Amino acid sequence: MSAPQTTAKGYGISDTKKYTDFSVKEYKLKTASKDDVTLDIEFCGVCGSDVHTITGGWGELGNPWVVAGHEIVGTVTHVGDDVKEFKVGQRVGVGAQVLSCMKCDRCEADNEQYCPEQVDTYNAKFPDEVEAQGGYSTAIRTHQRFVFAIPEAIKSEEAAPMLCAGLTVFSPLVRNGTGPGKTVGIVGIGGLGHLAIQFAHHLGAKVIVFSHSPDKKEDAISLGADEFVVTSEDGFADKYFDKLDYILSAADANMIPLGDLLGTLKVDGRMTSVGLPDEPWKGLQPQAMASNASALGASHIGSKKEVNQMLKLAAEKGIRPIIDQVLPMSQAGKAIEAVKNNDVRYRFVLKQDLA
Amino acid sequence: MSAPQTTAKGYGISDTKKYTDFSVKEYKLKTASKDDVTLDIEFCGVCGSDVHTITGGWGELGNPWVVAGHEIVGTVTHVGDDVKEFKVGQRVGVGAQVLSCMKCDRCEADNEQYCPEQVDTYNAKFPDEVEAQGGYSTAIRTHQRFVFAIPEAIKSEEAAPMLCAGLTVFSPLVRNGTGPGKTVGIVGIGGLGHLAIQFAHHLGAKVIVFSHSPDKKEDAISLGADEFVVTSEDGFADKYFDKLDYILSAADANMIPLGDLLGTLKVDGRMTSVGLPDEPWKGLQPQAMASNASALGASHIGSKKEVNQMLKLAAEKGIRPIIDQVLPMSQAGKAIEAVKNNDVRYRFVLKQDLA
Repeated sequence: MSAPQTTAKGYGISDTKKYTDFSVKEYKLKTASKDDVTLDIEFCGVCGSDVHTITGGWGELGNPWVVAGHEIVGTVTHVGDDVKEFKVGQRVGVGAQVLSCMKCDRCEADNEQYCPEQVDTYNAKFPDEVEAQGGYSTAIRTHQRFVFAIPEAIKSEEAAPMLCAGLTVFSPLVRNGTGPGKTVGIVGIGGLGHLAIQFAHHLGAKVIVFSHSPDKKEDAISLGADEFVVTSEDGFADKYFDKLDYILSAADANMIPLGDLLGTLKVDGRMTSVGLPDEPWKGLQPQAMASNASALGASHIGSKKEVNQMLKLAAEKGIRPIIDQVLPMSQAGKAIEAVKNNDVRYRFVLKQDLA
Repeated sequence: MSAPQTTAKGYGISDTKKYTDFSVKEYKLKTASKDDVTLDIEFCGVCGSDVHTITGGWGELGNPWVVAGHEIVGTVTHVGDDVKEFKVGQRVGVGAQVLSCMKCDRCEADNEQYCPEQVDTYNAKFPDEVEAQGGYSTAIRTHQRFVFAIPEAIKSEEAAPMLCAGLTVFSPLVRNGTGPGKTVGIVGIGGLGHLAIQFAHHLGAKVIVFSHSPDKKEDAISLGADEFVVTSEDGFADKYFDKLDYILSAADANMIPLGDLLGTLKVDGRMTSVGLPDEPWKGLQPQAMASNASALGASHIGSKKEVNQMLKLAAEKGIRPIIDQVLPMSQAGKAIEAVKNNDVRYRFVLKQDLA
């Protein structure tokens, strides 16, 4: 088979203080291997992580110039000799991870997202020091384990946000037993939360949505929430004492009434926060958890096994992200600004305009 | 049957700034009911909670004058008409809880320690407003559910510290699956930790002890630790990456390398902190937990079912607290000062001298 392309073009940032000043450059793709899939990118979702990264919220940039974006959908243009799962012309996606060691206990147990050698999709380096760049670009290449088939029923622009936002909530939901007979709390209804409501509902759980925005009630209910609770109301949690089996928070843990929410958990219950704020958790006292032996944890995307399970469920049940706007990639700065200013209700998606 | 005594005498504190100025007073015992057991106290352990409470670390006193102590062993002097489990003359104990509603889901599911109407042994009030006073005293009366039979094999002074220190570690250990095939970390080797090592070992787990005190290695190993790790050494956690199924910390969460310890957990693992510090947790970032989907939680004593299970295991396996000193109750101030100054290696126990 012919050799694949060696470069791509993308919109990148070199200064976290100028996080909307995207420049277009050509750069080297991952060094090709027999296991790699190369795709032309059609759509890329704009994730909160993109903003945390290029604004410096999570620290200085790891590479001199960073192409963000890890909710990628496109078409396969080349496969390595050992790729059996995909073929040229197939519609596929890439999420927030592009490599792991593939031989440790975690990789072997479908926990490759927790592999200590995991490589993020962007702002990272492959083992041979080639910089990993994201999806605000023409193309990406990565190992087939981190490429996902997109079911026919799901449109490309709708599949894109599932590959990070969707997976980030789907994985902890299923790992923490979301299903029939369980009552699950979802905190925060944005890009992640609005997908979490749908997944929890279609996994069979009773879904209680906690939000500080009364104006999101209608959306929450139509997405599958059984009850909607406004957290700015005094004593909002009282009615839910000892009712919740599990809570998934997609909000910044420092912006929510953490103690009150933890208090709604049943004994030994768990809350997972998938919002990774720029600051440490504040004012969290173990006393809040001592009243019900609850625990607060975090989570990181999900495994390929979970991506496939999620996309199958989404295709079958009609679970889709709500897309506020599809913008051409050249308007990435506008999208980033909107996310940073909390002007995005659910999700912005960028459409290819460089290729 | 004759009416039981209505009062007891104890050593109490009325000013958190003068937390060693114990005064002896007579006070009203719990209003007697048909389900109550009254006991003469022989021994009472000195718990970190006593110090947090009477020094004001957990807030101002809830009652004007507080008798601390909730690791109580003594002899039954009276039982109510509906008490079948105990008889006069029997050796029994009382821990850190003296009442719950006994009809909620939690009470019915052997989670009475998490009942929202639970009453602490001291610095609390019974529903009829009678002040609940603890074990630095001649006698205590409470509902039979919160009274425990002491197995013959265990000496009274050794049974006392098990009823709070022991139970506080035993309950989360068993609830989090400590047993054969599991590797459990125990952090901090004091009054709670030295019992946790023994329980985890005799429950069948491999036990890794983490301590900042290299001089406790010998004790830890003799108590059942398989490995001893000094947390002040750089990179101490590296060797234990992905090795621990569960961690129980009996140390102040603000005094330990929380992120490093969480990093030793397997994916989806949990750490429970049973040390309830005066201050909120500091600098805890969800990022530390996102690398392995771990969670940090707390716990509160245990149920009667767990007390009985614990005492049976302790009797069978020879699990005992290490008692540094037995002091007469009149020297409670000396004991409190020693705990506060971290001069107690494992446990001080007070012996009756008022009756």
